[in-house]
Amino acid sequence: MRQVLNRQKLDSLLITHLPNIRYLCGFTGRSGALLVADSGAVFFTDGRYSEQADAEVQASKIRIVRKSALAAATQALKTARLRRIGVEAARLTVAERAAVAATVGTRRLIDAPPIVEELREVKDIDEIGRIRAACRLGIELFDRLKGVLRPGISEAEVAGELEFTARKRGVEQMAFPTIIAAGQRSALPHARASTAAISPRAFVVCDFGVILAGYCSDMTRTVHVGLPQPKARRVYNGVREAQQAALEAVKPGVIAGEVDRAARNLLKKIGLDKFFTHSTGHGVGLEIHEEPRVAAGQKKELKAGMVITIEPGAYLPGEWGVRIEDTVVVTDTGCEVLTASSKDLITV
Amino acid sequence: MRQVLNRQKLDSLLITHLPNIRYLCGFTGRSGALLVADSGAVFFTDGRYSEQADAEVQASKIRIVRKSALAAATQALKTARLRRIGVEAARLTVAERAAVAATVGTRRLIDAPPIVEELREVKDIDEIGRIRAACRLGIELFDRLKGVLRPGISEAEVAGELEFTARKRGVEQMAFPTIIAAGQRSALPHARASTAAISPRAFVVCDFGVILAGYCSDMTRTVHVGLPQPKARRVYNGVREAQQAALEAVKPGVIAGEVDRAARNLLKKIGLDKFFTHSTGHGVGLEIHEEPRVAAGQKKELKAGMVITIEPGAYLPGEWGVRIEDTVVVTDTGCEVLTASSKDLITV
Repeated sequence: MRQVLNRQKLDSLLITHLPNIRYLCGFTGRSGALLVADSGAVFFTDGRYSEQADAEVQASKIRIVRKSALAAATQALKTARLRRIGVEAARLTVAERAAVAATVGTRRLIDAPPIVEELREVKDIDEIGRIRAACRLGIELFDRLKGVLRPGISEAEVAGELEFTARKRGVEQMAFPTIIAAGQRSALPHARASTAAISPRAFVVCDFGVILAGYCSDMTRTVHVGLPQPKARRVYNGVREAQQAALEAVKPGVIAGEVDRAARNLLKKIGLDKFFTHSTGHGVGLEIHEEPRVAAGQKKELKAGMVITIEPGAYLPGEWGVRIEDTVVVTDTGCEVLTASSKDLITV
Repeated sequence: MRQVLNRQKLDSLLITHLPNIRYLCGFTGRSGALLVADSGAVFFTDGRYSEQADAEVQASKIRIVRKSALAAATQALKTARLRRIGVEAARLTVAERAAVAATVGTRRLIDAPPIVEELREVKDIDEIGRIRAACRLGIELFDRLKGVLRPGISEAEVAGELEFTARKRGVEQMAFPTIIAAGQRSALPHARASTAAISPRAFVVCDFGVILAGYCSDMTRTVHVGLPQPKARRVYNGVREAQQAALEAVKPGVIAGEVDRAARNLLKKIGLDKFFTHSTGHGVGLEIHEEPRVAAGQKKELKAGMVITIEPGAYLPGEWGVRIEDTVVVTDTGCEVLTASSKDLITV
């Protein structure tokens, strides 16, 4: 961390983004600010989190304050002998920065790039272990889901069963609102689970993730209720091949944009590329969407230890859609799929 | 809206906070930007939301764009004949503002106060109807919860049952992570549901809310497993009286800080004020926490149609805690409790 600060010509960094705070000092509560300087780190939070901070925070002094953590950290900065104080420009709001500047002075404040986010890109063994455990639970949840899915049941009820099982297995929170999107709704890449009943012959896109010990999983399978038409099989297999092509493109040294292109090129060959309306993937860790982005034009080089999703899809407006998604960890020679559940077209 | 812009000496406002966008034009998706000017409103979103924008967006032109909605809106501003363009300073990040300024020019950009948030404070009949429906479901969920709660069951399982029932009743998402906190964990105001089993003799703080048709409910009841000790009864009754005192203080013209003081004063009389470590309440609407804040020193005047929570508590460190919370709507003469479920000490 100090190396990075030196490289950025900063003598300190005021960290306000909670996942970054958790990454650096271990605090899992919902209010806090962390000031990192050459002289050490100080963590500020309020009385509600006093016990929790004592139990969790490492390698930092703890200050329990009466005002907001950011206001207290700002006050401490006022008299600190620091000349180049970085703030997280991609996280701090314009109003928050103005309040800090009013106390600290504009000249000492530097808009810093996403420093901690970059440190978080490559995961260590412990982090990969946690993501692996979250993904393993994802696989189990999908097995449960297959047993529940049937014509007539509502999307929301399927999501509810899945989430209830997750709860019983120790999940504090889903990583994002569960998507169970059947029939025409499967053509909407961001449909959530609705109260609509699943019809007797339809694709159902199931996209879900859990947070386990702080780390996320992310996985999508598209199953078919009833017997699929030939066109449905064709599109499903096309998306599956595109997903496989992207998986095979993943290895250290490859730039993220090339992985996106591998999926897109395969879909182009079979005339489906215009129906693939989002990017191929994103990093996964303490947050469900983090660096690196796996999208057209992204020049970031993949490194061993990065964890990303590979999730191409094809959405035929007014008809239906298909998406297949795995969470994978980049290895020395390629990648390991952490959500290793069958991708054969399942019919229920 | 135009009146407010005139008052702020703005000829336009670039709106990026999604609940504000939903409030003004009806769009419920997760990516968009709304530009409001004298000449009318333009809503920007990307291809994933094309169908949804057509179905939902009102009183605005719709532009489906290839880049991010904010980037597209910024591009449109470049050539627009607007001289004082407001941005949402409390929502836009420092980095986002810098990107907008690089295209639009710094001189035309004005950091605007929370204009739409202020419009949202007083709810109309339709909004109150939706919050009422969400609160009614909250009451039902609590009835279900009482049937499930027993010694030995885990906090997470209770939360799971509650959320599953909510799902089946059409809830797309809980308003916040459900809190089921038993025994010593009830002394932590922000504990979530854990996998810990509920012990045979303990307070259980149950704090939960749903989002129904876009609007939130928020409600807390503290129930006791087994027979409560006299001290537990005393603290429970103290918090209940403090909550009642705050409810009775609510009416149009009263400032929010006075409502907070009503609860705090009552707890002071019985020596519990030092255990009340958070504020008395907050506004509820499209977001679970919105204006006005009901906290010490808050000078905002309550108005008929505002919806707020009243939720004093007392947390005895290392022992247990009690919180009682209702969502209420300010009426012409006082307030109406929307989460009207018994506050007698329930033992299970």
